[in-house]
Amino acid sequence: MSKIAPISGFPEYSPAQRIVEQRFLDVIRETFELHGFASIETRSIEPVERLRSQGEDADKEIYGVRRLAEEETDARWGLHFDLTVPFARYVLENAGRLEFPFRRYQIQKSWRGERPQEGRYREFTQADIDVVDVATLAPHFEAEMPLVIADVFAKFPVGDYVIRVNNRKLLSGFYAGIGITDTQETLRTVDKLDKIGPDAVRTLLLERGLSGEQADSCLRLAQITATDTSFVEEVRALGVSHPMLDDGLTDLAQVVEIAAAHIPGIVVADLKIARGLDYYTGTVYETQLLGHPEWGTIVGGGRYDALASDGKTTYPGVGISIGVTRILGLLFGAGALSADRSTPSAVLIAVNDEADRAQSTAIATALRGRGIPCEVAPKADKFGKQIRYADRRGIPYVWFPRADGDQVKDIRSGEQVAADPAAWAPPPADLRARVLRAGES
Amino acid sequence: MSKIAPISGFPEYSPAQRIVEQRFLDVIRETFELHGFASIETRSIEPVERLRSQGEDADKEIYGVRRLAEEETDARWGLHFDLTVPFARYVLENAGRLEFPFRRYQIQKSWRGERPQEGRYREFTQADIDVVDVATLAPHFEAEMPLVIADVFAKFPVGDYVIRVNNRKLLSGFYAGIGITDTQETLRTVDKLDKIGPDAVRTLLLERGLSGEQADSCLRLAQITATDTSFVEEVRALGVSHPMLDDGLTDLAQVVEIAAAHIPGIVVADLKIARGLDYYTGTVYETQLLGHPEWGTIVGGGRYDALASDGKTTYPGVGISIGVTRILGLLFGAGALSADRSTPSAVLIAVNDEADRAQSTAIATALRGRGIPCEVAPKADKFGKQIRYADRRGIPYVWFPRADGDQVKDIRSGEQVAADPAAWAPPPADLRARVLRAGES
Repeated sequence: MSKIAPISGFPEYSPAQRIVEQRFLDVIRETFELHGFASIETRSIEPVERLRSQGEDADKEIYGVRRLAEEETDARWGLHFDLTVPFARYVLENAGRLEFPFRRYQIQKSWRGERPQEGRYREFTQADIDVVDVATLAPHFEAEMPLVIADVFAKFPVGDYVIRVNNRKLLSGFYAGIGITDTQETLRTVDKLDKIGPDAVRTLLLERGLSGEQADSCLRLAQITATDTSFVEEVRALGVSHPMLDDGLTDLAQVVEIAAAHIPGIVVADLKIARGLDYYTGTVYETQLLGHPEWGTIVGGGRYDALASDGKTTYPGVGISIGVTRILGLLFGAGALSADRSTPSAVLIAVNDEADRAQSTAIATALRGRGIPCEVAPKADKFGKQIRYADRRGIPYVWFPRADGDQVKDIRSGEQVAADPAAWAPPPADLRARVLRAGES
Repeated sequence: MSKIAPISGFPEYSPAQRIVEQRFLDVIRETFELHGFASIETRSIEPVERLRSQGEDADKEIYGVRRLAEEETDARWGLHFDLTVPFARYVLENAGRLEFPFRRYQIQKSWRGERPQEGRYREFTQADIDVVDVATLAPHFEAEMPLVIADVFAKFPVGDYVIRVNNRKLLSGFYAGIGITDTQETLRTVDKLDKIGPDAVRTLLLERGLSGEQADSCLRLAQITATDTSFVEEVRALGVSHPMLDDGLTDLAQVVEIAAAHIPGIVVADLKIARGLDYYTGTVYETQLLGHPEWGTIVGGGRYDALASDGKTTYPGVGISIGVTRILGLLFGAGALSADRSTPSAVLIAVNDEADRAQSTAIATALRGRGIPCEVAPKADKFGKQIRYADRRGIPYVWFPRADGDQVKDIRSGEQVAADPAAWAPPPADLRARVLRAGES
């Protein structure tokens, strides 16, 4: 039998950590639904061919899947590496049955065969929203994405962050305006700025055939950041003109303006952001936690005009994705989040004697009927031992069935009061496990 | 590019069906938590060797997983085919950090390479509860499992059902008492009773070396069913005696008694139930929907004493599993369940003019702040067209921002009233999508 051991890159949580994860996922789901996104889930596998055709370096990352009993050795199916590619396929497959513009959210696991490191996993959960429409997609949807993200992080604070935005049309138009022909290659090179710095990027750009002047223009554009629409003038001052650049400036200005009106201080135009994936064509989003650039992108996304196309009809879309497992891995790793108990139970019903277990079960049934999570003690041990059972799990209350009237004890304070299973309830703060931030108790 | 097409056995739901699935999963989760089960999730993959060592015919069912970029062609990892085998591994891996008895629930996808058919999928969601303890496990946990299941189906009715229970010790003891040595083989043969009938089972038993008398005894035992503990006398009347048979009768009687006290009419002792898996050692559970035996088992489980063992310590457990995807597949297939809308939105905020979009967004923000799911119209079309947008998705209300005071229209009744975004709320029944049963509207 194989050794019992973790598999690198496939994280598993303790029950208390899982409570934190569930709370985060609940906040995300509730927020997405408040914003009118409908949930879908897609199957875990896609044809390998479809996965291979999307995204940079996707080849190395795909996990192939095949029945062990099958004759063929080549995998026809692979586990999806994100939720955007399967969603685009779902839209094409169900176009006749969906209402457009279609607003959907999707919270599922994905898999990538990358080298595991802090905050980078081989199995991970992402939470995505996307809006797709038929043939054209109104730019206001591009401005909507950051509002939803800000709403999530207002309810489940993960640390200080800004959502950095840019626009692929702005970049492509600018590059075209200075005579650069290979836009994708230039994008990918400039996208390395944070990792390797301006000098190394300049060297790479020159190696890829740009003139010194072109490379310097690219770097000057990449240095522009603004929390308002002042970036438009800064770009104009570089003296480049191209119709696509104009389009990009207009769209990015709208994203920044709407954000400034509804979520001031959250969105920053940052003209070095490009995102690695080939399929983005408009706004792109990227978020790192402030003070933790080494933790990488915790939220990313963008507009894609040609990802979902059946050759006749195109379904342009825009989406943004929260890296749930990455965020939690980083926060758990930093000891920043935990839960005050390891079980949903708010109450342990003590058992006086095994012969009286039915009495304790009936009390539990009464409490559950009023929405109070509880469990019956596993054994009619001495009460001290039953209380320790509750204490070790963080269960705050122990219920004692008594012939002269039941009592319930808050085992933190020691306070014990008479209680009726048909009427007693814990304070609302004790009803569910609490998520604790570092320093809280 | 590969053709866009469903993959047989990998179901995907429409947004409205997904609303039904989420409601079912919410009820399951809420119920499991009310009963004090803590959530865990395990990684999707396990070592192939570990998967292969568990369960009947497991070999044919495993999906192997490997990075396409890897050199080796043999898969070391496989997708888990249930949640019990990964849970047993999780318990062993984390035994030093868990509190025992450990009550956990797990709601996740599993994968089996079976031939797909109605109600049988290759990717499917199961919802499991288990209790494991160290070295010994109190039998009252075996009686607890059906109470939780009954609670789930009381809140999310799926149709008439009974939970059929039996006990492996009862069967093994009985078989040993009449001189049968290969208990597992006999169990598996008797388990086919419902599928192939008593004559065929008898023939198989004879082929496997049983005498006619032994085979007849097995079949007589298998015919016993009871909703109370009268089955004990019926078994005694067969004149077989063995210490393990006595144990099994006592344990099964306790399960039936506790069920009769807390959930009368739900649990039936049915002595032909065996469950295919080798690892069960005590109570086994099996549920079909009444009137739909052809739909197969929608809930199954049992006690396992040796599944989680590191050679020194054994962690006996008992668990039960709800076949979520199977149940939904059958009910969707029969047209028995749907939802009254395809989006969480209860309100569509109309847009008077694209220049006024910010005003509509501010109204949406106010409603969301009070927990009302809503969305802003995608385009400042004529109001008739905006109302049709809501109607096509089942959104019941359309909000009209007006200079002389906002109004909201119930588009089902046509009633339109003045409304303040800081105060108005829909009736509670309209706040969330409703799950409809066949015949409802």
